[in-house]
Amino acid sequence: MIAEIISTGDEVLTGTVVDANAAWIAGRLYETGIAVGRHVCVGDDMERLTDVLAETGQRADIAVVTGGLGPTVDDITASAAARAAGVELERNNEAMAYMEAFFKRFDRPVSDSDAKQALLPQGATPLLNSVGTAPGFTLKMGGCRFFFLPGVPFEMRQMMADHVIASLEADAARKGTGSFYREKRLSLFGLPEAHVNERLADLTGSLDGVKLGMLAEFPVIHVKLAASGTDCSALEAAVSAAADRVRERVGDYVFSETGQRMEEVVGDLLSRQSATLALAESCTGGMIASRITNVAGSSRYFLCSVVTYSNDAKMRMLGVSAHTLETCGAVCEQTAREMAEGASRMANADYAVSVTGIAGPGGGTAEKPVGTVCIGLCGPEQSFARKYKFPFENRMANKRIFAETAFNLLRKTLNT
Amino acid sequence: MIAEIISTGDEVLTGTVVDANAAWIAGRLYETGIAVGRHVCVGDDMERLTDVLAETGQRADIAVVTGGLGPTVDDITASAAARAAGVELERNNEAMAYMEAFFKRFDRPVSDSDAKQALLPQGATPLLNSVGTAPGFTLKMGGCRFFFLPGVPFEMRQMMADHVIASLEADAARKGTGSFYREKRLSLFGLPEAHVNERLADLTGSLDGVKLGMLAEFPVIHVKLAASGTDCSALEAAVSAAADRVRERVGDYVFSETGQRMEEVVGDLLSRQSATLALAESCTGGMIASRITNVAGSSRYFLCSVVTYSNDAKMRMLGVSAHTLETCGAVCEQTAREMAEGASRMANADYAVSVTGIAGPGGGTAEKPVGTVCIGLCGPEQSFARKYKFPFENRMANKRIFAETAFNLLRKTLNT
Repeated sequence: MIAEIISTGDEVLTGTVVDANAAWIAGRLYETGIAVGRHVCVGDDMERLTDVLAETGQRADIAVVTGGLGPTVDDITASAAARAAGVELERNNEAMAYMEAFFKRFDRPVSDSDAKQALLPQGATPLLNSVGTAPGFTLKMGGCRFFFLPGVPFEMRQMMADHVIASLEADAARKGTGSFYREKRLSLFGLPEAHVNERLADLTGSLDGVKLGMLAEFPVIHVKLAASGTDCSALEAAVSAAADRVRERVGDYVFSETGQRMEEVVGDLLSRQSATLALAESCTGGMIASRITNVAGSSRYFLCSVVTYSNDAKMRMLGVSAHTLETCGAVCEQTAREMAEGASRMANADYAVSVTGIAGPGGGTAEKPVGTVCIGLCGPEQSFARKYKFPFENRMANKRIFAETAFNLLRKTLNT
Repeated sequence: MIAEIISTGDEVLTGTVVDANAAWIAGRLYETGIAVGRHVCVGDDMERLTDVLAETGQRADIAVVTGGLGPTVDDITASAAARAAGVELERNNEAMAYMEAFFKRFDRPVSDSDAKQALLPQGATPLLNSVGTAPGFTLKMGGCRFFFLPGVPFEMRQMMADHVIASLEADAARKGTGSFYREKRLSLFGLPEAHVNERLADLTGSLDGVKLGMLAEFPVIHVKLAASGTDCSALEAAVSAAADRVRERVGDYVFSETGQRMEEVVGDLLSRQSATLALAESCTGGMIASRITNVAGSSRYFLCSVVTYSNDAKMRMLGVSAHTLETCGAVCEQTAREMAEGASRMANADYAVSVTGIAGPGGGTAEKPVGTVCIGLCGPEQSFARKYKFPFENRMANKRIFAETAFNLLRKTLNT
């Protein structure tokens, strides 16, 4: 069983957008035990797209096609599919009814360009989109079953799960060719990728069929342990044993084994302890607060953040003393501590975390280069601050690693 | 002249690595005036790679192939190229001499597996790699000139510049077919994609050879106008005239014509007016502050943000009156106005913007459903607030569109 992946759209073809969808789809197909033969990307060009669809129909067993299903003039995928299959487009009543219901929720009529999205090739079956307007569809051409999905990543991902993977698993179950896949992901922070690699390199090949992979999502490193086979419980035992061996080497740096991000881990700890949090951010500029409030339900523990960029704001809003700022400067442990204490006092919070540092590109000195950050923490029992130096010149890289470091210090404090 | 891009390697095919090389190469070719027909990705599989090379030789004028040139067993690109061209591999003396010189700098002999990299298809011309060991090569197959480059991004980029772009430009100059590419991008906010499309649909094909494309980067829509040809000043005039016609239809929604994001546009306006900004964010949770401080130099105009999630914090930190919160609730124009006024007063800022709304998934009511937001603005001359309702259920979508709406209100105020 060979799958191919087709990405459409001028923005991908011309390099305006990197084709991350194809990689994601390939990963999901592999996990389902299906090998991918090739990826192809074509632009919004009727003739080339029709050619690619027809060729793929001759070659592959399954094809996942993304993009070009929307309401605009350059959305030509359904037309190209009809041409490749040698059929006409026709209005699909099921797709139309679904769109009408979707728009009704917002008291909006279905416009003419929206209605275009219900025109599908004859013989196609619509695939309903639970998170957007454009329906997808599935169609057999040549020896190949095509799944046409939107290019918007979160819609595509939902529809891969709802329709493609579900249907492939059902096929495999029916034919008795079911294959299981198990994976475990350990998320690490605080150790550079090369060091993680050095500590784990010799495990490769000695994990009882479990494949070890590393995925850097700066500044976090995910260690992925994956195995596939026909014996479900043997797979689970092998993956679990492999995780034990990884933990022996890098366990101190693991903050999540469930795919949770740092803000979710910290949010759960605060929730369980019925504790509240306030923040005082300088160089991270609200990034920590924004990440915390990305988590639904964060209003249970998150009270406020004060983003104080200027020294004046640090004094007025957080009560940092002029003396401290004059003698030590804005980036020092004492200032970080006073910021955390000020935030805690002002919000009456159980925990307060502060960040003050030099994200760059400007503002560094020989003594306090770009990449220097001080993090303060004020808890029910003590307040303290720590200084860190990171080797990055890049503003965004520094904002990210400063934020992650602050989360991690809070996580460790909540865990003790 | 049609180019195709071929990426090789199991890590790309299986989705372990996203194929950013293809996007980068496509961008460089477009800038050189060369249209890209398709990208194809295949794994380290001799038969499939040979097929793809042979097919491409029949279809394209130029092909750039990356990956599989290294010393290991899964580096099979040179062999596949030889098979597709129907020739043998042979040791290339120029490539070998170059590698010997390269290793001599590190006092290392050329090992057997390194020497494999000097085996090129008969008739190929080596392309020297100034930043690594693996030489590339160029070869004519069918009607197509192939450039084979390493997959390591920085080596590939250097060799694109040294060999591919240099050779294409030299060809064009010799034939007098020099081709230019010009594009303009208008960034819009405030009109859904389907509406932008309805307003612009009939322009397609009537823009004097300029291609109109739309790219949604939620909640922003980019309208891209692109043209290529041999007469540089005619291209510029055509793109400029096309932009005028787009502006006639949707000009009110254009916030940038230079690719700047909303936070950069607003930052420039504040800088030019030597004005300062304070924020009071509730449901956006620091996202606006974080975006503002992503811009280097934002400390010139950005003073502080107060992220007040709880009613208590709104009263204590921003001076919102208990009476307002009791009678109108946290999400109303009056609360938004008092939040903005409080932030302005506290920070002594020229402008203050506040956001209070219901991002979801919970917290909505019949009267104030998820997607409702009030934005307050306190400027030197007046303070006011506006209410908006968006149709999204998704927390992240709402945070993004609330933030963009707040930026846009500030932008319009600064522009009047």
